[in-house]
Amino acid sequence: MAVTVITGMIWVMSRWEPNARGRIAQAAMELYSRRGFEQTTAAEIAERAGVTERTFFRHFADKREVLFGGSARLQEVMITAVVTAPKSASPVDAVAASLQASTTLLKDREFSRRRQKIIVANPELRERELIKMATLASAVADALRRRGVTEPAASLSAEAGIAVFRVAFERWVSDPNNKDLPTLIRESHDQLGALLSEDRRSVGGRSHG
Amino acid sequence: MAVTVITGMIWVMSRWEPNARGRIAQAAMELYSRRGFEQTTAAEIAERAGVTERTFFRHFADKREVLFGGSARLQEVMITAVVTAPKSASPVDAVAASLQASTTLLKDREFSRRRQKIIVANPELRERELIKMATLASAVADALRRRGVTEPAASLSAEAGIAVFRVAFERWVSDPNNKDLPTLIRESHDQLGALLSEDRRSVGGRSHG
Repeated sequence: MAVTVITGMIWVMSRWEPNARGRIAQAAMELYSRRGFEQTTAAEIAERAGVTERTFFRHFADKREVLFGGSARLQEVMITAVVTAPKSASPVDAVAASLQASTTLLKDREFSRRRQKIIVANPELRERELIKMATLASAVADALRRRGVTEPAASLSAEAGIAVFRVAFERWVSDPNNKDLPTLIRESHDQLGALLSEDRRSVGGRSHG
Repeated sequence: MAVTVITGMIWVMSRWEPNARGRIAQAAMELYSRRGFEQTTAAEIAERAGVTERTFFRHFADKREVLFGGSARLQEVMITAVVTAPKSASPVDAVAASLQASTTLLKDREFSRRRQKIIVANPELRERELIKMATLASAVADALRRRGVTEPAASLSAEAGIAVFRVAFERWVSDPNNKDLPTLIRESHDQLGALLSEDRRSVGGRSHG
């Protein structure tokens, strides 16, 4: 009974505050960009978004989570892509599919660029972002193992895939005139393959030299 | 004059405490393994090592640094290997040389295995280890750029190299009967190349199919 009442209350409050979550996120980004992450409080974000502090904390555990609220969804989308890739797909193909799937959630370059600037400026946020990436890599490796990929192929493919993603993402946000993210991911992926096969050729060359 | 006196005092104290740093590190590892990292204080480590707390803090900034005191030297050795690799070495060759150079500092599998167990058990230490790896990757990318390697090849080679290192290191510490670290690094490196070139072949196949 209590649950029903609470659910009803949240529903009513949501009606009073259309898209509170989106407004909080936007207010936070503005304040983080202008004053810096450390100098901004949850109370100030709530005020700017026109919601109560309580509403802020109903949507986000803390002010850091405004920047990382999308992580769970990102991971879910990437894992689904690995798991549902065709049976014939190689481990690297499956990872490539998951990287492409991630781009469906990363459409707004200007938002990502601002977020990246806020994160780079703050050691605590940089750490949080590293943890997010490491968590993604191990979740992707785990999904590959569920496809029957053995170790170390699963971890190598996943870690290399996340490396490709990081490099492509960095290129995407650092230059607004650069290609779109799906293209940059494909290019970076191909370039890593070329770098490694060049190495393999040169190793072969030396062994006969 | 004051400096001379202080230097002399440190010298005398060092004579009283032969290899204090090594004994502190060993005492810390024993306590972290037995009680856990969080449950151990610097005072307890100092006591076990037979040194004063002051001596502990002369050698290590805090109890976490006992586990990360080798990071600077590791990075230095890896960067030197990248910078001094033959001019003809490809970016991936130079990174491979730096990974092999790192193994000269990682000879004691039992120590590394215990250290890894301590780190995996503690979120704060896992984060610190991730930061160490990310710092290594960006230092290696920086060294590649000093060799004239352009972006994104520098970052891709460095990030993929660190991924290879992590996977090989994990295999090395998780199985005492496994091959030695230099061999596992070479194998993981070759395997990543094979995984990516398999992908390239299959992509080629599909484009003609």
